[in-house]
Amino acid sequence: MTHVFDEATAVTALDTDAHTVRATTHPAYNNMVGPFGGITAATIVSALQKHPDALGDPLALTVNYVAPIAEGHWDLTLVPVRTNRTNQHWTFTIDQQEHTVATGTAVFGIRRDTWTDTEPAAPQAPDAETVEAVDFPDFIAWARNYEKRFIVGGMNDGALDDSTTTMWIRDLPERPLDFASLTSITDTFFPRVFLRKGAYAPAGTISLTTYFHASADELAAQGSRPVLATAKAARFAGGHFDQYGQIWGDDDVLLATTHQLVYFKDAPA
Amino acid sequence: MTHVFDEATAVTALDTDAHTVRATTHPAYNNMVGPFGGITAATIVSALQKHPDALGDPLALTVNYVAPIAEGHWDLTLVPVRTNRTNQHWTFTIDQQEHTVATGTAVFGIRRDTWTDTEPAAPQAPDAETVEAVDFPDFIAWARNYEKRFIVGGMNDGALDDSTTTMWIRDLPERPLDFASLTSITDTFFPRVFLRKGAYAPAGTISLTTYFHASADELAAQGSRPVLATAKAARFAGGHFDQYGQIWGDDDVLLATTHQLVYFKDAPA
Repeated sequence: MTHVFDEATAVTALDTDAHTVRATTHPAYNNMVGPFGGITAATIVSALQKHPDALGDPLALTVNYVAPIAEGHWDLTLVPVRTNRTNQHWTFTIDQQEHTVATGTAVFGIRRDTWTDTEPAAPQAPDAETVEAVDFPDFIAWARNYEKRFIVGGMNDGALDDSTTTMWIRDLPERPLDFASLTSITDTFFPRVFLRKGAYAPAGTISLTTYFHASADELAAQGSRPVLATAKAARFAGGHFDQYGQIWGDDDVLLATTHQLVYFKDAPA
Repeated sequence: MTHVFDEATAVTALDTDAHTVRATTHPAYNNMVGPFGGITAATIVSALQKHPDALGDPLALTVNYVAPIAEGHWDLTLVPVRTNRTNQHWTFTIDQQEHTVATGTAVFGIRRDTWTDTEPAAPQAPDAETVEAVDFPDFIAWARNYEKRFIVGGMNDGALDDSTTTMWIRDLPERPLDFASLTSITDTFFPRVFLRKGAYAPAGTISLTTYFHASADELAAQGSRPVLATAKAARFAGGHFDQYGQIWGDDDVLLATTHQLVYFKDAPA
């Protein structure tokens, strides 16, 4: 049986060289308006990985969310700009009914054997199974596809002075981690402004950048066990804020770092 | 007299709608191989700001360094993908002699009056004038255009256990800060692997993303006084590492956050 995540990220080629592929929004990954940005980003990574010209594994991804994506088909055009010896640069565009709704870039590459070190420590966290899993409100459909166990900064914690969320998270139903699902997880933090204000407010990701530090072997070793995800904002101003996050695997392996810019409006008084 | 930074970031229109502009590398901003990535990014921001269709100010920039840029002319094609009510999405490509050497995306927008807060504290640092300004080796030409005063993680500090650099930095000759010069400053951290290994090694930025938190008024208020810039890596592995940085202005105003992915090779033993 196909996992709902694989259903939602499936694409079909529209031309023989696979430069344009068609995806379809999946109701299980809807957000308040349009699809969850994480599933869109994951679909792009999955399509790039399946492209016959892809070199190695994902290293970097930037997705700009240009306009709301409507339910239904969307077409992803992948442009292999240049393939170097160990890395490969892509640009892509998502179009829907003659309008561009997303743009972005990706870097793929071959990981070489080099000196390695991880500087930050993973956040302190009790074992996942000792932390209660919580649901988001029903109108956030995509969140039902994730098991979320909040250590700090949960959805119902009211107005906090610190925008940090740290959570154990994994796909539901359980699914072995891969680059596509890791991509989606880097966008699963609810908007930091909700946490600071203790209230919903209009907010949405404008631009998402994720760097993939994990090798394919490290992802495979993680299996379907929860990853430890942490994120926080630095500055809220002028209708925007940033969010910096890290995704940690077993044995303190830093799988990904991620940075996003989010627009927001003040909640009604 | 034109400042050398403005000389280096100048462009001329190649078509009547200003979608393609020509820039020229400037020897004062050369790096070890090709131009300093910061000056390339700054040229893009400057060209976008001068575009007749530009909406508001820079919010986000991603530049992918696809191939080395040779000395001489390079052509920047700017594509205004979509203009929404308060933000505007661009893609761009840099071509040089029929080859694409860089790609990227930018978001511009209008800052609205909203709730504001900055969560992190600026790094502790003595007043800039009490810290000695240091030069980089002569073969790093671009660095001569910056006054660099290192608080931690200087170029000659040997092999450290922590990749953090914190420095006061400003343009030389002094020049009032603007979005273009701030963009360049987000790429002035030398490769973190030099600091960890206490040695030079082949290294170069693959992808740079900067979020602009400062309003134009905040930048204007900074004038030509040094900004406090801090950056550190999270993980070195497989021939790549990331770098996360913050640029702080007077009165603890967070001007920008920045994230980049860098390739490196191990230094010869």
